[in-house]
Amino acid sequence: MHRQPDNRYWNALALVAAVLVAGGCTRAQSDPLPSWNDTAPKKAIVAFVERVTTPGSPDFVPPAERIATFDNDGTLWAEQPLYFQAIFIFDRIEQLAPQNPEWKEKEPFASVLNGNRKAALAGGEKALLEMAMATHAAMTTQEFSQIVVEWLSTAKHPKTGRPYTDMVYQPMLELLAYLRGNGFKTFIVSGGGIEFMRPWAERVYGIPPEQVVGSSIRTQYEVRNGEPVLARLPELNFINDKAGKPIAINQHIGRRPIMAFGNSDGDFEMLEWTTAGVGPRFGLLVHHTDDEREWAYDRESHIGRLDRGLDEGPSHGWTILSMADDWKVVFPFETR
Amino acid sequence: MHRQPDNRYWNALALVAAVLVAGGCTRAQSDPLPSWNDTAPKKAIVAFVERVTTPGSPDFVPPAERIATFDNDGTLWAEQPLYFQAIFIFDRIEQLAPQNPEWKEKEPFASVLNGNRKAALAGGEKALLEMAMATHAAMTTQEFSQIVVEWLSTAKHPKTGRPYTDMVYQPMLELLAYLRGNGFKTFIVSGGGIEFMRPWAERVYGIPPEQVVGSSIRTQYEVRNGEPVLARLPELNFINDKAGKPIAINQHIGRRPIMAFGNSDGDFEMLEWTTAGVGPRFGLLVHHTDDEREWAYDRESHIGRLDRGLDEGPSHGWTILSMADDWKVVFPFETR
Repeated sequence: MHRQPDNRYWNALALVAAVLVAGGCTRAQSDPLPSWNDTAPKKAIVAFVERVTTPGSPDFVPPAERIATFDNDGTLWAEQPLYFQAIFIFDRIEQLAPQNPEWKEKEPFASVLNGNRKAALAGGEKALLEMAMATHAAMTTQEFSQIVVEWLSTAKHPKTGRPYTDMVYQPMLELLAYLRGNGFKTFIVSGGGIEFMRPWAERVYGIPPEQVVGSSIRTQYEVRNGEPVLARLPELNFINDKAGKPIAINQHIGRRPIMAFGNSDGDFEMLEWTTAGVGPRFGLLVHHTDDEREWAYDRESHIGRLDRGLDEGPSHGWTILSMADDWKVVFPFETR
Repeated sequence: MHRQPDNRYWNALALVAAVLVAGGCTRAQSDPLPSWNDTAPKKAIVAFVERVTTPGSPDFVPPAERIATFDNDGTLWAEQPLYFQAIFIFDRIEQLAPQNPEWKEKEPFASVLNGNRKAALAGGEKALLEMAMATHAAMTTQEFSQIVVEWLSTAKHPKTGRPYTDMVYQPMLELLAYLRGNGFKTFIVSGGGIEFMRPWAERVYGIPPEQVVGSSIRTQYEVRNGEPVLARLPELNFINDKAGKPIAINQHIGRRPIMAFGNSDGDFEMLEWTTAGVGPRFGLLVHHTDDEREWAYDRESHIGRLDRGLDEGPSHGWTILSMADDWKVVFPFETR
């Protein structure tokens, strides 16, 4: 026979249930995007999310199909004065110089070692790729991940003196949490290195490794003294930029996102692919207009150039967000 | 002031809470793997899952790291008398023959059209690849997905006369649900085509497209009359077999699984990579020993050869499951 719990037990249980219900209501009514001004972009996001999550609405989208993709550099974290991964490459070249004495007389490495990082970039994509391979390959995936984690724990942003993982956009952190709270799966789809982002994306953005998509080099499976490793080869596998983004979205995610967020013309095809789908779709471009709190740049910038997106985005129905006007706060450390 | 709910309200709430609690207990006590005999493999799986999910246990694994990977052909569904995707290729060649009159005199297509599928396979990998490209490319990803769905809705397995999606293993369906019920994310990691599996893996296995990893051909992004498409090119992108499996696991999932399930030597490296990780790990190979309910094959088979795994698996601590001895039921239709 079951023991009958006494009244105090029932009451305690009822109290717990009541608190849970009340807590749920309170949360739903508070502002999920407090760092956003009440301007058009915030209104458009909230209206869209309500449309696709209201059961019985003709625009209802089942949770499994609520895929949102985010560019990283310039969309989730800053990208000035240089992509942070490029700064990582330069720092690594300086660290690895003693083991590579030939770099002293070999461009683009010599310029980096002479403190002239700008000159090192004069060689364009070819030079950057050469430096990337020299610093990203010839080690296991596990070793590379550790190097990234160690670098992030000590390196400081040249302008703010903050760790790079502090240079993330507070409004975007709120947006990621808001979308996940509404049943969305949030993905990073970035031109940055997939293995450069994974070691910290879960801690910083709440995005697990399997939802991070990026550029990659080839790896090779080897068993070394009985221990299997993945060796990183100095060979490009995939560049996840421009038309590469929808290709990688299809390869990794296998369905079309219903929301996409970017900030440069490198994100154009991702937004185009996303918003051309059937049913409700949402595209947003972050326009860097805030020279005080962040940086202001667009059509003429070497980093994060936004030109075609400004011209053609609106006719695609994309929201253009102005950082200066639409964000109350830019970086988390402003609010602390 | 808050209105005080009356006693009937409290009691109703308490009743709901009590039912929820009781329901949870009942579920936990019922057998989650009813189609498995109470032999070593089932015991090992349940013991492992309890170890890694018990809070406070030294072997506790946080939900985010509970990744389980499954081969598909021969592990989740059958693969005899031929990989089902190979049958799809042959069927497509017959369907496409009128638009390709030259196939009548060109091997390996001529053999297929003459009804001699075995001869068509005599050309080995090169012939199979040629047939795959002729049937899998020159269309958009969306068109290919529709072709797969239509084929599955009409094609029948040559031995059982059942749709191919009925030829899945009931014990594995239970295992997938059991693992997900314990906070695991379940992934397919198969040598089969990633785009061949995605259109039905969610409905049949409960595995969403973003958790399906497989072999692939290249795609190209194009805007056709204003509509963006991904065109499938007759060019291999990645073969997800043998040492390719850990490489793809790293590329798609970005962390090492803690459980891996396979059935052939093509899964050896996936199990090796998985079980060599730090902390609790589990590897299992399905040994096809059941000539009555399914098929019996291993060391000498052209399809799903299992040789090295039988020899070396036990010393790696892998469980070898015998289909004849360890599964009460093989296919779902046996129980209906």
